[in-house]
Amino acid sequence: MAEVSAPIAELRQRLGASTVLVPDDGLERYERAARGASGVAAFVARPSTVDDVRAVVRWAFAEGIRLIAQGANTGLVGGSVPDATGRVGVLSLERLVGGLVVDPIDRTAIVPAGMTLSALEAAVAPHGLTLAIDIGADPSIGGMAATNAGGSRMVAYGDVRRRVLGVEVVLADADATVVDLLGPLRKDNTGLALHQLFVGSDGSLGVITRVAVELAVRPEATATAWVVPGSDLGVLELLAHAEHDGRAVLSAFELCSREAIDIALAVDADQADPFAGGDRPEVALLVELSGAGDVEGALVEMLASAPDGAIADARVVPPARSWGLRHAISPAMAVAGWVVGMDVSTPRSQLLAFRREARALVSERWPDATIADFGHAGDGGLHFNLVFPRERPPDAHEVEAIRGAVYRLAREHRGSFSAEHGIGPTNAEWWPDHVGAGARRLTAAIVELFDPAAILGHPALPYRSSRSHP
Amino acid sequence: MAEVSAPIAELRQRLGASTVLVPDDGLERYERAARGASGVAAFVARPSTVDDVRAVVRWAFAEGIRLIAQGANTGLVGGSVPDATGRVGVLSLERLVGGLVVDPIDRTAIVPAGMTLSALEAAVAPHGLTLAIDIGADPSIGGMAATNAGGSRMVAYGDVRRRVLGVEVVLADADATVVDLLGPLRKDNTGLALHQLFVGSDGSLGVITRVAVELAVRPEATATAWVVPGSDLGVLELLAHAEHDGRAVLSAFELCSREAIDIALAVDADQADPFAGGDRPEVALLVELSGAGDVEGALVEMLASAPDGAIADARVVPPARSWGLRHAISPAMAVAGWVVGMDVSTPRSQLLAFRREARALVSERWPDATIADFGHAGDGGLHFNLVFPRERPPDAHEVEAIRGAVYRLAREHRGSFSAEHGIGPTNAEWWPDHVGAGARRLTAAIVELFDPAAILGHPALPYRSSRSHP
Repeated sequence: MAEVSAPIAELRQRLGASTVLVPDDGLERYERAARGASGVAAFVARPSTVDDVRAVVRWAFAEGIRLIAQGANTGLVGGSVPDATGRVGVLSLERLVGGLVVDPIDRTAIVPAGMTLSALEAAVAPHGLTLAIDIGADPSIGGMAATNAGGSRMVAYGDVRRRVLGVEVVLADADATVVDLLGPLRKDNTGLALHQLFVGSDGSLGVITRVAVELAVRPEATATAWVVPGSDLGVLELLAHAEHDGRAVLSAFELCSREAIDIALAVDADQADPFAGGDRPEVALLVELSGAGDVEGALVEMLASAPDGAIADARVVPPARSWGLRHAISPAMAVAGWVVGMDVSTPRSQLLAFRREARALVSERWPDATIADFGHAGDGGLHFNLVFPRERPPDAHEVEAIRGAVYRLAREHRGSFSAEHGIGPTNAEWWPDHVGAGARRLTAAIVELFDPAAILGHPALPYRSSRSHP
Repeated sequence: MAEVSAPIAELRQRLGASTVLVPDDGLERYERAARGASGVAAFVARPSTVDDVRAVVRWAFAEGIRLIAQGANTGLVGGSVPDATGRVGVLSLERLVGGLVVDPIDRTAIVPAGMTLSALEAAVAPHGLTLAIDIGADPSIGGMAATNAGGSRMVAYGDVRRRVLGVEVVLADADATVVDLLGPLRKDNTGLALHQLFVGSDGSLGVITRVAVELAVRPEATATAWVVPGSDLGVLELLAHAEHDGRAVLSAFELCSREAIDIALAVDADQADPFAGGDRPEVALLVELSGAGDVEGALVEMLASAPDGAIADARVVPPARSWGLRHAISPAMAVAGWVVGMDVSTPRSQLLAFRREARALVSERWPDATIADFGHAGDGGLHFNLVFPRERPPDAHEVEAIRGAVYRLAREHRGSFSAEHGIGPTNAEWWPDHVGAGARRLTAAIVELFDPAAILGHPALPYRSSRSHP
């Protein structure tokens, strides 16, 4: 048996061998992230109660051992897996799944951190409710809160921050204090909104053990169309028109490049070409309306009344087909080649200009990469992805140069280098360049206040002053 | 001329006599709050540029003089006016009104802190947009952000926190550092959401100078009805039904007691009795739907399809009339007698039970008070107000006993003693009893981190450790 340190052996002894896994147990699934990043875990603690979470945190505080909180390990920036040192432990919340409370009249739920999105949806669907966060993975609720997940329906329902009414957290102090900030109340102005600080904190401030969420009413019907815009300006005109039209709610406004659709159709035989029989357009928009009654009729009328020139072509298709193709893009890219994935945002009004410039820049400097971008144009978000051929992997310097160039361009358009995926090791090095000195200083002070012993969060996170002021 | 201290004279000299007002200039309107609270200002600084805000804060930091940020001075808990010591200055943002930027395609605006809600609405209405915060006052945007205002349409549009994408703040440090956290981006997960910390901070962490907001599409039409619920349970059944119905958006679900309507009709001759010709009901609901097309028809159909027994009576009335009466309640109460105003919330599913118990308790202990409660049942909020006869003002002990009893009951129903009005001197003493030790400790640490010299916020705010751990 591979040796483990005395403190780890002692924790395993105390909490049990099924709660504290060591390398001999096989830790691979906790060590490898969804998008390739991987590391070596010193151990994996899998508490199934808040008391056991506290026991682990108390122990880590006393021993000075760093814990990376992990939910369903679906993050895309490497923030949920340990680094390569083998000195970091994983605090998996996957077994913290008991005690869901749903209040249908209040339209709220208190959700254990380890519960998956699909499990929550299954539990609330009978009440006609939904969390209304649509992402191409099945994360845990705790992970969604810690990273403020966004997704495809944010244009109507907002991000996770919008839906979180409160959290319960275990703090990184000597006593592993539990702080109940759950509410769940819609209106509660009683001082600082501490719970908001944990949303999107990447696990750097405390361990989220429960999340109180506001649920949304599940729409009676949705209808989707693939729309070919008449021009870049047409994209923005159609977006504004669809929002102002009011016949139904605009619940998705997704942009897909021809290359992204090409790859999805080439790799995934289950998907049908929405433009079969004609040329695939350079850009296609997946437009979804939600509501009651004849939503498809509302969609047709909305499209028919769009500003002149905004739409070159539009095809109403069943939601299962349009979303099937949309969600097939990411997995297909990973099969098709070496992906350099970037997740940028700008103000919506800037997105098309940014996109045009970024594609031109990348085409010129990295002509052998396919630019398969797609994303949430309704929120100003774009997954700007390059796919290099299988036989031609980009090296680390190229990846850095690509990110640097694209992120700089996003910033020039008043945008962000991390729209919804968060920081993590993938984006850590760019943080000091893209976040102002004042914000970095406040962040460092808060992180040091909440986690004085530096036992939480991925070691690569750049939030502490030693990193942000090199 | 009344004497002012040398530092104040020096600041007035530096920034000019129209920017720094002293007692001889007449400071009353900065010293008296909307709901009676008043104090004595050492001076009023009214910078019209962010640079001048910085000059005032830098000066206050150096001199150790406390500043209370004030917007339009419409707060209801005394947090925007100085205390009685005469040692505190008012930092009025009312002249910080230049530089509004509206981006109609992005559906965002960057708003100077001093701009009023009505001025912002006037500026964005031509674009078919609205901030969608409906409150019975005309606050400044900076004040709305600092206090996280809520209001009557929160059930559809959320609170100010929901609509704030970013803030620009001047910090209470030696340099009065400006931190630009404006974005404005819908998706921007790049570390801690610092801007969220300032929303609802009651001015205790920094001076908000600009606010980036997401605007909403102004609905084409709204329709309202006064509804008499068949029972307490009927209120909740109708709420759930209206949300799930989906023919249009439920944009308000307000509860008004008979006493509140009686007072509004007795005091305000412009208001018409929606129940003329019959008995006024114990409880009436103002229900509003928003959407496009025949919204009134949608309202009629929604009401007609409500669960059996949920509705005893319903009358569709023009929105101007229903809202006229609803907004007449607060001013009428102030005319009718001595108001003890409380602003509580519970989970929606608990609100009617709380209300029943609170009314029973108050009727028994304070039989000469009229309970004129009303509020935002769709958000679990209730303005639980007692009106004492003009000839029988309650004394301070009674007010404290009333608040204590009602707030305790709210807590027993998992509720809050401050739904949307914030803390301020009015609610400060209740904070330690209603907020947990962990949250108090974190709050104190953050406040001390952001404002080490204790120069910001009302002196009565209980957030610092010396107060929260007496």
